Amino acid sequence: MKRTPASYLPPITLQDREEIPIYQQLYDWFRRAITGGQLRPGQRVPSTRNLAAELKTSRMPVLGAFEQLLAEGYLEAFVGAGTYVARSIPDDTLSRPAEKARNGLQETVEKRGPRRLSRRGVALTNLPAQSWLDNLGAFRVSLPALDHFPIGVWSKLVARNSRKPPKGIMAYGDAMGYLPFREAIAEYLGAVRGVRCEASQILVTTGSQQALQISAQVLLDPKDRVCMEEPGYPGARQAFITVGAQLIPIRVDHDGMNVAEILRRGRDARAVYVTPSHQYPMGMTMSAARRMLLLNWAARSGAWIIEDDYDSEYRFASRPIASLQGLDTDGRVIYIGTFSKVMFPALRLGYVVVPTDLIRPFSAARDATDIFSSTLYQAVLTDFIEEGHFARHIRRMRMLYMDRRKTLIKAIHSQMKDMLEVIGAEAGMHLVGLLPRGANDVGVSRRAAQRGISAIPLSTCYLIPPSRGGLILGYGGANSHQIHEGISKLRMSVHRDDGRY
Amino acid sequence: MKRTPASYLPPITLQDREEIPIYQQLYDWFRRAITGGQLRPGQRVPSTRNLAAELKTSRMPVLGAFEQLLAEGYLEAFVGAGTYVARSIPDDTLSRPAEKARNGLQETVEKRGPRRLSRRGVALTNLPAQSWLDNLGAFRVSLPALDHFPIGVWSKLVARNSRKPPKGIMAYGDAMGYLPFREAIAEYLGAVRGVRCEASQILVTTGSQQALQISAQVLLDPKDRVCMEEPGYPGARQAFITVGAQLIPIRVDHDGMNVAEILRRGRDARAVYVTPSHQYPMGMTMSAARRMLLLNWAARSGAWIIEDDYDSEYRFASRPIASLQGLDTDGRVIYIGTFSKVMFPALRLGYVVVPTDLIRPFSAARDATDIFSSTLYQAVLTDFIEEGHFARHIRRMRMLYMDRRKTLIKAIHSQMKDMLEVIGAEAGMHLVGLLPRGANDVGVSRRAAQRGISAIPLSTCYLIPPSRGGLILGYGGANSHQIHEGISKLRMSVHRDDGRY
Repeated sequence: MKRTPASYLPPITLQDREEIPIYQQLYDWFRRAITGGQLRPGQRVPSTRNLAAELKTSRMPVLGAFEQLLAEGYLEAFVGAGTYVARSIPDDTLSRPAEKARNGLQETVEKRGPRRLSRRGVALTNLPAQSWLDNLGAFRVSLPALDHFPIGVWSKLVARNSRKPPKGIMAYGDAMGYLPFREAIAEYLGAVRGVRCEASQILVTTGSQQALQISAQVLLDPKDRVCMEEPGYPGARQAFITVGAQLIPIRVDHDGMNVAEILRRGRDARAVYVTPSHQYPMGMTMSAARRMLLLNWAARSGAWIIEDDYDSEYRFASRPIASLQGLDTDGRVIYIGTFSKVMFPALRLGYVVVPTDLIRPFSAARDATDIFSSTLYQAVLTDFIEEGHFARHIRRMRMLYMDRRKTLIKAIHSQMKDMLEVIGAEAGMHLVGLLPRGANDVGVSRRAAQRGISAIPLSTCYLIPPSRGGLILGYGGANSHQIHEGISKLRMSVHRDDGRY
Repeated sequence: MKRTPASYLPPITLQDREEIPIYQQLYDWFRRAITGGQLRPGQRVPSTRNLAAELKTSRMPVLGAFEQLLAEGYLEAFVGAGTYVARSIPDDTLSRPAEKARNGLQETVEKRGPRRLSRRGVALTNLPAQSWLDNLGAFRVSLPALDHFPIGVWSKLVARNSRKPPKGIMAYGDAMGYLPFREAIAEYLGAVRGVRCEASQILVTTGSQQALQISAQVLLDPKDRVCMEEPGYPGARQAFITVGAQLIPIRVDHDGMNVAEILRRGRDARAVYVTPSHQYPMGMTMSAARRMLLLNWAARSGAWIIEDDYDSEYRFASRPIASLQGLDTDGRVIYIGTFSKVMFPALRLGYVVVPTDLIRPFSAARDATDIFSSTLYQAVLTDFIEEGHFARHIRRMRMLYMDRRKTLIKAIHSQMKDMLEVIGAEAGMHLVGLLPRGANDVGVSRRAAQRGISAIPLSTCYLIPPSRGGLILGYGGANSHQIHEGISKLRMSVHRDDGRY
């Protein structure tokens, strides 16, 4: 026995007035539960003493039933280590009914076709597999340099906060988030991103995806029109589609989203989704002139601007540009950010800054969605920020990512010069490499995934299939060795085995 | 200075070719950021050395700008402790523009009325305040006995898991959840609840609310009809309303949901929401006959059953009854559970067990909702379960809650005999007390909340206003003293000051 798991108390109900003796009822129950798969091979069962006490019966019939189950090989006893469901049970051919049930169900499904789901459920079932997201190898987008994370400091803060948690940290928390955390975020956003807000306007979320879902829910009705960057962030597309919104693709060029096109084609749009600091996926920065044009249009037309500032912490060549939110005088901007990239993804913490008149519906929507965010990590991150580790970590990562970006570009130039054309500003944690015309980027990504490489096909970010495919390559989580190895595997993935694209 | 926060690097962009000298540009930027509220009183600013390095300029103009800002009182310097935004800034009357912006916005809103949200957003804005959920005092429903939680063991496991986390624990995780955790849940559910499933069928969620939201999204289209228990769980109602479903109230009696009524009135229903183990809020258990009737109806009509088994761990008088899911041979049951009550709410972990053909859409829906659940707590809880602490904790809490329930009933009998009629089975963590006819339960709850008591008005669980109000009283988180004090405060809250209801 490697481990000694505790035994659970099984849901047995004894029929007192039946003719069937107690020991027989117990024997039948265990045999059924074991052959039926509810009790699993190797699982511990309660002691006869505990079981008798639990069932308020004498120990004799329990001993009788267990003896028989042991004799027939359903149970195994280990001296001093308790009684277990046998690892190989006697009528094994009759068993595994979970499997049988599944197979039976499979047959049923095949016979009568798929069962009725919602339209959304059907669409979700039929989403194409994204095999490039199945691995955490080189070029996984949004993956930070986890081995450079100050885990020692962090785990000390985790331990400190969980050792003597105040009641509030374990109980139900505020739907908007843990107040000291929101204050730390407000201070950070004001200083670094020029965001103007009070802590009361900040809703803590489980990440930017939840922030997008809640924004879509509060702001958009089915059939409402939303302007999306083309190409743009598929997560945002998913959120808007979930509420039945209609998407208007607006092209991006070297100055970011083409706002003039919004004025022409998006007149009745209820909202615009935009990544002005570092366009996802193409990487350019929205020009100041377009920012003002967009804000003025939104104020005039009464549309909302959803500003996704997912990785603005990292700029290498130029200084960061202040957020749209900080320029907005009409309370039109919903500002979304995340700690998945600056900290680590499994933290599951992000935030949305909302105009004051939207605090109430956003808070109520969060409550209806999943009530509130786990408090421990909010408290730990507050300490991490207030003790200065956060600012330090960002500075260190900025240097690191700048280096990794250079390494990646060099590796592409030396190994894939004729196959990948690098575009995007010197910022963030990813870049886009355009493939030669005619190459099928989804095919390239699939082949790369088989080699353990994660490269998102650029075409998956388009609503209208693009004339030229490409690959989105993250460099945050890959060191120099992984980058070089990754690029040589990627080179092998560009062409099919028969040499064609 | 109590703490020395790190300074953030501000988003300054210097215009190199302008006639305005660098020191003037810097002075202007800081003055604007300070009076504009982006930089907050008491916040640390970078050292002149760091700022000059960051901006790739010489240190002279930075020193010049800082000298002027110090002289004018915008900044304060502390020897050896750095430079800070002054705690009281000179033209304070001109400042606090976040506030001004808010006030300005407030005026705008008042002038032109509320701004356009989605219908759902408007409904969320207008949800009545639930002041009884603002406190964690006696009778807060679903609050467990946090001071009896084995925090020493737990925090050791937290520390162990966060000290040397494998890469996988910090990176992006599986949308379905952390596999060892799902295996532990499958084993637990099979042994204790008679649930038949493989780990692959388990989707880990942030709690039962998210499980409900995702189920609604995958299974229901707008206008689809859903049978709800009447009275029933408001969180489920919210989830179904979010996707535009129509609710059919089905009365509950002493045998639980009246399934015959579903057969009559719910013929075309797409789904039934039910809490068979311990009806929420009334507390009865669904009879075996009704369980079979419901399953047979669902198999015939092709409807889904959403079984919410939110607190089945705790039964005091009788043995637990196996789940509907374990009796289902047609793969019709979506089984939902949570760790908020057995462990603690801020854990934010729950799960849903889905039929095998629904794994894919549920997984994709979770991905679109918020990608995945934070991994640390999943890993910690896996250890907690496997090392036997979980089974032990449940047993101890069962004894404790049985006592607390008795204490509460005694306190009601001695202090409020003529005002509260206790109903519900001997199970769970709450009971319902019916108020005298004519009493307005919302009013009672509001007055109780002012005294720091949390009692949910029973009428909020009804779709059709009930003829008799009541209070839902949680006893999990209240010790004997708090129960007695709480009941005397509740007694004072039943009548208004003028003696009427």
